[in-house]
Amino acid sequence: MTTEKIPYKIFLTEDELPKAWYNLRADMKNKPAPLLNPQTHAPMTASELEKVFCKELVAQELDDVNPYIPIPDEILNFYRMYRPSPLVRAYCLEKKLQTPAKIYYKFEGQNTSGSHKLNSAIPQAYYAKKQGLKGVTTETGAGQWGTALAMACSYYGLDCRVFMVKGSYEQKPFRREVMRVYGAGVTPSPSDTTAIGRQILAEHPGTTGSLGCAISEAVETAVNNEGYRYVLGSVLNLVMLHQSIVGLESKAAMDKYGIRPDVIIGCAGGGSNLGGLIAPFMGEMLKGQARYEIIAVEPSSCPSLTRGTFAYDYCDTGRVCPLAKMKTLGANFSPGANRAGGLRYHGMSPVLSQLYEDGYMKAVSVPQTKVFEAAEMFARVEGTLPAPESSHAIRIAIDEALKCKETGEEKTILFGLTGTGYFDMYAYEKFHNHQMDDYIPSDEELQKNFALLPKV
Amino acid sequence: MTTEKIPYKIFLTEDELPKAWYNLRADMKNKPAPLLNPQTHAPMTASELEKVFCKELVAQELDDVNPYIPIPDEILNFYRMYRPSPLVRAYCLEKKLQTPAKIYYKFEGQNTSGSHKLNSAIPQAYYAKKQGLKGVTTETGAGQWGTALAMACSYYGLDCRVFMVKGSYEQKPFRREVMRVYGAGVTPSPSDTTAIGRQILAEHPGTTGSLGCAISEAVETAVNNEGYRYVLGSVLNLVMLHQSIVGLESKAAMDKYGIRPDVIIGCAGGGSNLGGLIAPFMGEMLKGQARYEIIAVEPSSCPSLTRGTFAYDYCDTGRVCPLAKMKTLGANFSPGANRAGGLRYHGMSPVLSQLYEDGYMKAVSVPQTKVFEAAEMFARVEGTLPAPESSHAIRIAIDEALKCKETGEEKTILFGLTGTGYFDMYAYEKFHNHQMDDYIPSDEELQKNFALLPKV
Repeated sequence: MTTEKIPYKIFLTEDELPKAWYNLRADMKNKPAPLLNPQTHAPMTASELEKVFCKELVAQELDDVNPYIPIPDEILNFYRMYRPSPLVRAYCLEKKLQTPAKIYYKFEGQNTSGSHKLNSAIPQAYYAKKQGLKGVTTETGAGQWGTALAMACSYYGLDCRVFMVKGSYEQKPFRREVMRVYGAGVTPSPSDTTAIGRQILAEHPGTTGSLGCAISEAVETAVNNEGYRYVLGSVLNLVMLHQSIVGLESKAAMDKYGIRPDVIIGCAGGGSNLGGLIAPFMGEMLKGQARYEIIAVEPSSCPSLTRGTFAYDYCDTGRVCPLAKMKTLGANFSPGANRAGGLRYHGMSPVLSQLYEDGYMKAVSVPQTKVFEAAEMFARVEGTLPAPESSHAIRIAIDEALKCKETGEEKTILFGLTGTGYFDMYAYEKFHNHQMDDYIPSDEELQKNFALLPKV
Repeated sequence: MTTEKIPYKIFLTEDELPKAWYNLRADMKNKPAPLLNPQTHAPMTASELEKVFCKELVAQELDDVNPYIPIPDEILNFYRMYRPSPLVRAYCLEKKLQTPAKIYYKFEGQNTSGSHKLNSAIPQAYYAKKQGLKGVTTETGAGQWGTALAMACSYYGLDCRVFMVKGSYEQKPFRREVMRVYGAGVTPSPSDTTAIGRQILAEHPGTTGSLGCAISEAVETAVNNEGYRYVLGSVLNLVMLHQSIVGLESKAAMDKYGIRPDVIIGCAGGGSNLGGLIAPFMGEMLKGQARYEIIAVEPSSCPSLTRGTFAYDYCDTGRVCPLAKMKTLGANFSPGANRAGGLRYHGMSPVLSQLYEDGYMKAVSVPQTKVFEAAEMFARVEGTLPAPESSHAIRIAIDEALKCKETGEEKTILFGLTGTGYFDMYAYEKFHNHQMDDYIPSDEELQKNFALLPKV
């Protein structure tokens, strides 16, 4: 245990909370490709998007010009209930590893949703309310996004209808119950409440569902109900924008103590956490002001960055959503029994996909047993029980720190601890009982799905 | 939403963390009665207690002279990983209630154990390690104490054996799994690993166990294993001492902004939270320096303060522990299907029992459906999903604030939010499905148990 002047937790004051989100796209030379109409393959217009999404959110989705978007006071007031989140110096982990590296993590799990998802749920509910809507629909896999949205909707007095991937719904009944505490309606997907759900149930009786299918059902429900819109917790540009609060706070806290990270590590499913964490650092890189080593970590069972193709693809199973140009494994890809529900999506944020293609960041994939080993070590020394998703970043942070031990380098490592694992004990149990497999898709499996990509 | 100068969360800096625990007993004129040997009924000596408990903890248990006990640096270093905990101004709850009252809560749920229990688990594990022990044994009901102790033992490299009330073990498998993450062994109680366990199983086949029984098994295991001692997470004087950190921080944070509470509210099971929260405030009252209205809240299914008798009683089912003079419902009392596992103990801290008898505090009891109504309202406006135990305090804080609304008084209310309810979703589900009953023991039931009290 050291007694350096850097405290265990660096808290910003409420006054130091960022007042604007940072829109990384404004500083990208190669902008992410536009969303396309799934029928015509023409770029989606604002008015087309507004049939599905809230008006203000569409404006944010399409804005690749303005670098800073002021955060409305009402949202800032909500943020103040749980933000700024702590930036923690992992002294105990460093000691355990006997590494000269300095490890920091931005901890986003200290709110009831238990994850960073609340950062985007609040503005999405706020803009829906401002537009005078009755409610919103969404999908959830692991349940973190659904919980966050239920909480935000409860606060703003909006109806919230969540389609939860059936496998998750059954394995995580308590996640469902948390959403009920916040007044949300939760339907296992696929369900017989939508045309696409009924079709999938007919084609695949007994299916445990997928995110892509739940998205289709949520969109259908939003479009068919007066006063409803669909909201999404990852992948979209607007989500990256809201999540920039994570990176802005991290950078402000580090700047306060004159700390500069050498390596920045985040888990990557749809990209909401990674995109948020790296935003201001990546901004400096894009402007040639600094260099950081940025590492995206994904499960080897769902390797969209490391083994996916960069192409236009469907975002959902029912093919009702716009096409997005992204690193993708194909909309029909299945990631096996991957216990990190938040890292099971076939595609990756178009912003992050473009940055990866342009060489601004690296990506690695890790098998889940290695991830849970890291999770347990982290829990035992740092106290916090991490979500399986977050533990992907922990794994690589530990590996990087161990490299420093070998080389003697005193690198400063920053990683995103996106949430807690309280609702993932079933997965931990599988790990303890040695019942966890490390599925890795074959090249044939990937090629089979690539062949089904839309011809754009 | 107001924009007063008091922030949502008042955080002390690490430098402002209290450096000593406050030993309330030093300032009590009527000291709590000593523990008695269950055979001889003579006061337990230090050397007798040291056969069961760690040496340094016995010294703390018996010390009713020194008002301040310095916190060792090693413990302070651990505290710094998650303390100071936030003091939150419940602006959103105030707005929802439209009350002129100002409501604050001290939030102890922001660590993996999810509750205030860690505050005493750390010193208890630390002193065990310092004494060169191999490990410790304990019991857990709701699982909060077991989780906290598992975490502390993992940090200090001690073996940790937890006897978990069988009903909880079966209803809360994920609590068990959290303890396993931290390397603890968890045994459902009663078990066939102890003589008392086997005896109880023979007499009551199919029993779901009780805290009193799990205590007996843990003590037996400690005494019969070389290098082991027994530790306890509530009731004892030493636990009240460690938990004083909660009150000391609360008072320091309020003093920083010139805030003075009129009413202080805490839930009370064995008393660890309430005793800690009120410690420095009660100290001022004992010295005649101030007056506060202090309210203990207990479930109407387990009303040790409001309906118990003040007498020496057994602390455990097997009658192997010392006798304690306390407010008690009798060691054979059963609290029905009370979903707040942390508030099911038949007795109350001797310190708090004495203060209650001497008129320094009030107590009220509330039925659990009213508690869950308050819990859900709180979750929806303040965001945090509270533990059922903590929600007892929320219930009365809300009731007090509503009284202020009627009278127009601008009282300042402080309550303890001891933990989060992530592992209590089964109870929330019962509440949502209207399957929760409000058991209230009859006078006859109580008298029957009082008749079994030891003759001292």
